[in-house]
Amino acid sequence: MTDTAALDTAALDAAAPDAAALDAADPLAGFRGRFVLDDGPLAYLDGNSLGRAPRATLARLDRLHREEWAGDLIRGWARWVDLPTLVGDELGTAVLGAAPGQTVVADSTSVLLFKALHAAADLRPDRDELVVLGGDFPTDRYLAAEVARARGLALRSIDAPGPEPVTAEQVAAAVGPRAAVVLLSHVDYRSAALADQGAVTAAVHAAGAVVVWDLSHAAGVVPLALDADGVDLAVGCTYKYLCGGPGAPAYLYAAQRHHDRLVNPVPGWFGADDVFAMAQRHVPAVGVRRMLSGTPLVPGVVAVQEGVRLVAEAGVEAVRAKSVLLTRFVVRRADADLARLGWSVASPREESRRGSHVVLAGPGADGLVARLAARGVLGDFRHPDLVRIGLSPLSTSFAEVDAAMDALAEEAASG
Amino acid sequence: MTDTAALDTAALDAAAPDAAALDAADPLAGFRGRFVLDDGPLAYLDGNSLGRAPRATLARLDRLHREEWAGDLIRGWARWVDLPTLVGDELGTAVLGAAPGQTVVADSTSVLLFKALHAAADLRPDRDELVVLGGDFPTDRYLAAEVARARGLALRSIDAPGPEPVTAEQVAAAVGPRAAVVLLSHVDYRSAALADQGAVTAAVHAAGAVVVWDLSHAAGVVPLALDADGVDLAVGCTYKYLCGGPGAPAYLYAAQRHHDRLVNPVPGWFGADDVFAMAQRHVPAVGVRRMLSGTPLVPGVVAVQEGVRLVAEAGVEAVRAKSVLLTRFVVRRADADLARLGWSVASPREESRRGSHVVLAGPGADGLVARLAARGVLGDFRHPDLVRIGLSPLSTSFAEVDAAMDALAEEAASG
Repeated sequence: MTDTAALDTAALDAAAPDAAALDAADPLAGFRGRFVLDDGPLAYLDGNSLGRAPRATLARLDRLHREEWAGDLIRGWARWVDLPTLVGDELGTAVLGAAPGQTVVADSTSVLLFKALHAAADLRPDRDELVVLGGDFPTDRYLAAEVARARGLALRSIDAPGPEPVTAEQVAAAVGPRAAVVLLSHVDYRSAALADQGAVTAAVHAAGAVVVWDLSHAAGVVPLALDADGVDLAVGCTYKYLCGGPGAPAYLYAAQRHHDRLVNPVPGWFGADDVFAMAQRHVPAVGVRRMLSGTPLVPGVVAVQEGVRLVAEAGVEAVRAKSVLLTRFVVRRADADLARLGWSVASPREESRRGSHVVLAGPGADGLVARLAARGVLGDFRHPDLVRIGLSPLSTSFAEVDAAMDALAEEAASG
Repeated sequence: MTDTAALDTAALDAAAPDAAALDAADPLAGFRGRFVLDDGPLAYLDGNSLGRAPRATLARLDRLHREEWAGDLIRGWARWVDLPTLVGDELGTAVLGAAPGQTVVADSTSVLLFKALHAAADLRPDRDELVVLGGDFPTDRYLAAEVARARGLALRSIDAPGPEPVTAEQVAAAVGPRAAVVLLSHVDYRSAALADQGAVTAAVHAAGAVVVWDLSHAAGVVPLALDADGVDLAVGCTYKYLCGGPGAPAYLYAAQRHHDRLVNPVPGWFGADDVFAMAQRHVPAVGVRRMLSGTPLVPGVVAVQEGVRLVAEAGVEAVRAKSVLLTRFVVRRADADLARLGWSVASPREESRRGSHVVLAGPGADGLVARLAARGVLGDFRHPDLVRIGLSPLSTSFAEVDAAMDALAEEAASG
């Protein structure tokens, strides 16, 4: 990124940031053609909700269906049986900063979060609090409340820290000697606030608790170092920046040091030591595979593999570099064209504290998102007055974002 | 089936059953062409493990990927959000004998079984036993043991009744006033023993317990009447006779009368009353949708829909009629050609007590299954000495089974 850094600043610091110059200098520009784009919307700002479809994934799924399912039939299981750990390892290595043997791809994020929270509670049986972030994604809070209830833990909320990421200091203040488990999101689903995973994890550990990170809005677009940061457990979804498709299976990471004491609360046959032994009692597999339950959704796991390979080819550092420029572009245009219409940036302005989306707060956000959609500019409304603009670096051009911001400014002015 | 009944008996009662005559008279013969068959094995006797790929399913998945995921992008969720209940209703109506509003398609069988067992235990909070079948499928027994442990229930086993189905009398003897939940499989995964679901359910109810049925080896090939039989909860997989593909999502049925008290132990956002409200607390959806947890695997649910429609088009009664002839065919050939080589039928001989596979017990079964596979005849070995021959009526011809039995007899004679 050295060569482009100077240009970026010039192109972005201008009164009207120069999308064409930014696209021309973008080392990842070629990746856009790796996605199906035909007949698509004018601007797609929801790649942080459902990533675009990579061409290679569609081709791979077609082969999987025709050659492996229809052709190999039951014999396919000789290969498929290893997919959850194989793709977990690829994901861990390329995206999570996790050495092999610690990640599985399976189930949904909700189900894996349920497993991770129970497994985390097992690691601190002498403690009786589960700590969550007040404003965290609903399914995270729902599951934390249920696991707390089932395990007899008190549920404690860290007050939502507004648009800024939760800090190690806030965590240190809120996590006391009774805390067993702390559940946090690395990137906030609304504000894009990006926590310092290493510092916050250290604060949790200093209090003697274990941390479960939800990486859904971070993986594939923010560099992660789960091993180096000493993370205990993590989960996340694959249909955002990892482009696994609608409802693609999720992943669970569990640090090697916990494996001996790791208990799956949903012990099914695919987490058993010998899957096909049909044993009398459940003997957990050695390692993270024990966190599997039922038969893996093969096409889903294969789609995740293709998405991970695309991110790996680009490199998460390069993806992050473009992501920073894309969010900066939106912030500059918002400041230049929207502030006077009553709109403000409700994501962190400090780039090191911001993930890959930007939320803008302003009047009539709900109706504005609907009017933009009618013009082919797809973003998200978030209660009560937020427009969420997701920036998926591998499939999004600066020109696309520029057109979207033009439309947004027009609609904000006319609404 | 009236016209073919006479012919069937004649063709099957002959010393060598006449596969060609049976195929010629088979009213479902045309369905075979609805599956991808090119370059396939000589005989596929594992449709009870992984059903063949329907051509319509592959075409539908291709459209889903190219037009809906790649084209509609996030807008697809306006339709996809209803798929778990929509396809659940189609499955309920066509296959389960369940009125709409009681079935969802989601997760894996293991995860849904976990939910069903917890939900069932909630319905009998004053009781402290969970009853399982001793020889039931491993994941069923593993999960029952874990749910019993988590809920403080004693786990009680009904002794495996050999190759015959568990009877209402056995259940009545084993299920006492302490029993909260009884978990049973409708068709045994090894012997194909087919329980009388109505009578057994009545016996469970007479003891004041609730029943959870695993329908995995029954749905799509044995007529079911969950509503009429008064079943409480049921789960099953979709990759066998419902042809949903490897690891396709499972289904859960919960009788309407229990919905007000139905609790999902894995409460995620897709089971919330308003999925996208991002509410502070989890308010369960009205009805069976509350049993959903995370984001549904859209391609998987769509594949289930296509498989269900294929079964619905044929009609489960017609599928069952052919299934009975196919298993009878295997039994006749085993008696005629294999008995003298030390092989015996280890499935129920009474057809009303047999599902859609046949197990044969004999010397060197493991090696024999491997030698058959090398010849393109795909069946299953089951510990310790069983060859399992699955007969999937929509995709299996009598000629195919005839060729398989020829190969089996040759290998048994030479082994």
